[in-house]
Amino acid sequence: MNNNLIIKNARIITPLGTSALKGKEMNQLLDLTGGTVKVTDGVITYAGPSRPTCEEPEEGYEILDAEGRVLLPGFIDSHTHLVFGGYRPEEFIWRMNGESYMSIMQRGGGIVNTVHATREATPEELKCKAEWFIDVMSRMGVTTVEGKSGYGLDRDTELKQLEVMRSINLSPQRKVDIAATFLGAHALPPEYQGRADEYIDFLIHEMLPLVREKQLAENCDIFCEQGVFTVAQSRRLLQAAQELGLGAKIHADEIVSFGGAELAGEIKALSADHLLHASDTGIRAMAENKVVATLLPLTAFTLREPYARGRDMIDSGCAVALATDLNPGSCCSGSIPLTFALACLYMHLTLEEAITAMTLNGAAALGYAHRTGSIEVGKQGDFVLLDTDTPAVLVYYTGMNSVQHTIKGGRILF
Amino acid sequence: MNNNLIIKNARIITPLGTSALKGKEMNQLLDLTGGTVKVTDGVITYAGPSRPTCEEPEEGYEILDAEGRVLLPGFIDSHTHLVFGGYRPEEFIWRMNGESYMSIMQRGGGIVNTVHATREATPEELKCKAEWFIDVMSRMGVTTVEGKSGYGLDRDTELKQLEVMRSINLSPQRKVDIAATFLGAHALPPEYQGRADEYIDFLIHEMLPLVREKQLAENCDIFCEQGVFTVAQSRRLLQAAQELGLGAKIHADEIVSFGGAELAGEIKALSADHLLHASDTGIRAMAENKVVATLLPLTAFTLREPYARGRDMIDSGCAVALATDLNPGSCCSGSIPLTFALACLYMHLTLEEAITAMTLNGAAALGYAHRTGSIEVGKQGDFVLLDTDTPAVLVYYTGMNSVQHTIKGGRILF
Ligand SMILES: [Zn+2]
Ligand SMILES: [Zn+2]
Repeated sequence: MNNNLIIKNARIITPLGTSALKGKEMNQLLDLTGGTVKVTDGVITYAGPSRPTCEEPEEGYEILDAEGRVLLPGFIDSHTHLVFGGYRPEEFIWRMNGESYMSIMQRGGGIVNTVHATREATPEELKCKAEWFIDVMSRMGVTTVEGKSGYGLDRDTELKQLEVMRSINLSPQRKVDIAATFLGAHALPPEYQGRADEYIDFLIHEMLPLVREKQLAENCDIFCEQGVFTVAQSRRLLQAAQELGLGAKIHADEIVSFGGAELAGEIKALSADHLLHASDTGIRAMAENKVVATLLPLTAFTLREPYARGRDMIDSGCAVALATDLNPGSCCSGSIPLTFALACLYMHLTLEEAITAMTLNGAAALGYAHRTGSIEVGKQGDFVLLDTDTPAVLVYYTGMNSVQHTIKGGRILF
Repeated sequence: MNNNLIIKNARIITPLGTSALKGKEMNQLLDLTGGTVKVTDGVITYAGPSRPTCEEPEEGYEILDAEGRVLLPGFIDSHTHLVFGGYRPEEFIWRMNGESYMSIMQRGGGIVNTVHATREATPEELKCKAEWFIDVMSRMGVTTVEGKSGYGLDRDTELKQLEVMRSINLSPQRKVDIAATFLGAHALPPEYQGRADEYIDFLIHEMLPLVREKQLAENCDIFCEQGVFTVAQSRRLLQAAQELGLGAKIHADEIVSFGGAELAGEIKALSADHLLHASDTGIRAMAENKVVATLLPLTAFTLREPYARGRDMIDSGCAVALATDLNPGSCCSGSIPLTFALACLYMHLTLEEAITAMTLNGAAALGYAHRTGSIEVGKQGDFVLLDTDTPAVLVYYTGMNSVQHTIKGGRILF
């Protein structure tokens, strides 16, 4: 497999640029019928109208005739927890049937359950499970996926999760690139009950330098929420991470309006995520400071919560990204088609905005906008070929997969 | 392929019986760990606990070791319009962006669009498209699917649609059985504007006898709705169909409360479908007369309408079925996983009720409960093997396919 590929006769639809698109820009996609793309050694070396030289069979290049179908950048799922031990399907049913959070915790549900299972699991078990999800997501067009630690909450398990992601990334046959995020501050571990500040100290003084030294994560994240970590603790951890060169991400304003979006603006985080209860001030802060507002509608759907105000955010000038939040608790789903449907039907994004949110803006939320997220010379040869000539099928085939081929670094995976 | 199969070591979960389960009965499933199923010539000849004779390799039988995973009856999608010409993705986008029904009609949208395309299409084109959808649905566990005519609204095209279904049914390699429904009364054709009663006369006196004589459909359906066909017209058509031995089905109370559910009770229809605005009286009439209340939550989801009152219906003693409503206009989706998610999360069915609704009750809504819809001796060897040992994955993997194998008449399709 030489990763040299020419895709001809495609309807190329793509955002353009190497940073997130904000507000009205999210609607401004290139839409080129009869387009050709050339990928050399995994990198795009031509993208544009057909040229005779691109149409001729070229030595060492595989040729894919798109027959007029839509070619998009590969999808970027910029918020997942895809490395975890155990499953929690019972808990899902309890919650579905109306049980309270407290009652579920008492029955052994909640994140503690996954932390226990992840501490017990071998790296091979974790890798095998993550690869199962990656296979499914890849078939739905995902070519880059974020993966968070945060189910260890101790030194060795957090490192184990991150090392599993690295080992997947090192495979030349990998289906996706994983952008690893250190989320040691996902919850307060049982061992630190009542000592949250000490746990933050441990993360800052022991874990972050270790993660940095081993180059195990590119970004750092925290669960900033009432009853979990405060805004002050979040600021402290994320600024320490930024000083070490990591990007900052934040689980913000999911359950109550808590000031997470405001903090993200203040420290110029890469992204603030969830945002179901982001305030108007928080939305302005994100827009002004180019923080990507990452919306996770699958989780709102499974929890029967109101959706984040995606329309308002874009109209206020934010850059919005969409991601799945795949995790074993609230949302064990990586459904890209359902994410598109919820974004367009229930958060009132246009289809063009949703495409930008799932490609270039997702890449920007990971600090990857220079290398993926659009179909442009110099970026990775990561594409989705839809099975028809209109992008409307992304929502029209509601909840069903409309991806015919996923292409990663010039390799046709499916 | 001899259609002789033994599935061993399965967790068998199934409703039981040869008629629809009503009210509380919908929760009463057999749940047998370590079960064995034997299929001989496509028909179940044993289903129960493991027996030594069933565990030994038997001449001419394929053996499938379920390794503890969940075995369900094959899913029955009892309401689809899967034979149609053209597509209407633009219209979906217009509606999503807030355009009114009237404006969409003026731009050439609506059923007229599909009627035109279906009249133009060759049988081969229609068959090829239907088979594409059948393939996708089969991978999601569907082993029996209903198909309606109703995009011809003239003699030849209605027959063409039904003949396409017959030709699929005649293939020994078919992935599903299609239960064909005559829906000549889907809309008033342009040729009959202002003469609805004359069109009903045409259906009763010309079409129904023809459909009956050629044995092209087992059931008859009508769109009973304000501005389409009245309750009186629906009664007249469906009673004429019943006199010819066809079962009666009715698109009822989708847009307004219109008396469709009440009529279904009065004439003892097999099913009343949609029911978003069914009245309390209508719900009682369905419960008392064993009409299957067929709910189509995907369509409510795509149209952003409130869901049908599934919980109330079951609590009132109704037999509820779930189906996709796959069609080129309001809902071009056959997503079984999303149907389960919507039913359980947003119509408040229990998982057990949803399983019954997607299997035995769906079969009953087609008049097929004697031959499929449960795992019992004498029924077709139609199964779904989930990829894990808990049925909770049907909703826990929200919107994602949890089917590992679909088995049709003893043949492992996927
Ligand atoms: Zn998360
Ligand atoms: Zn219908």
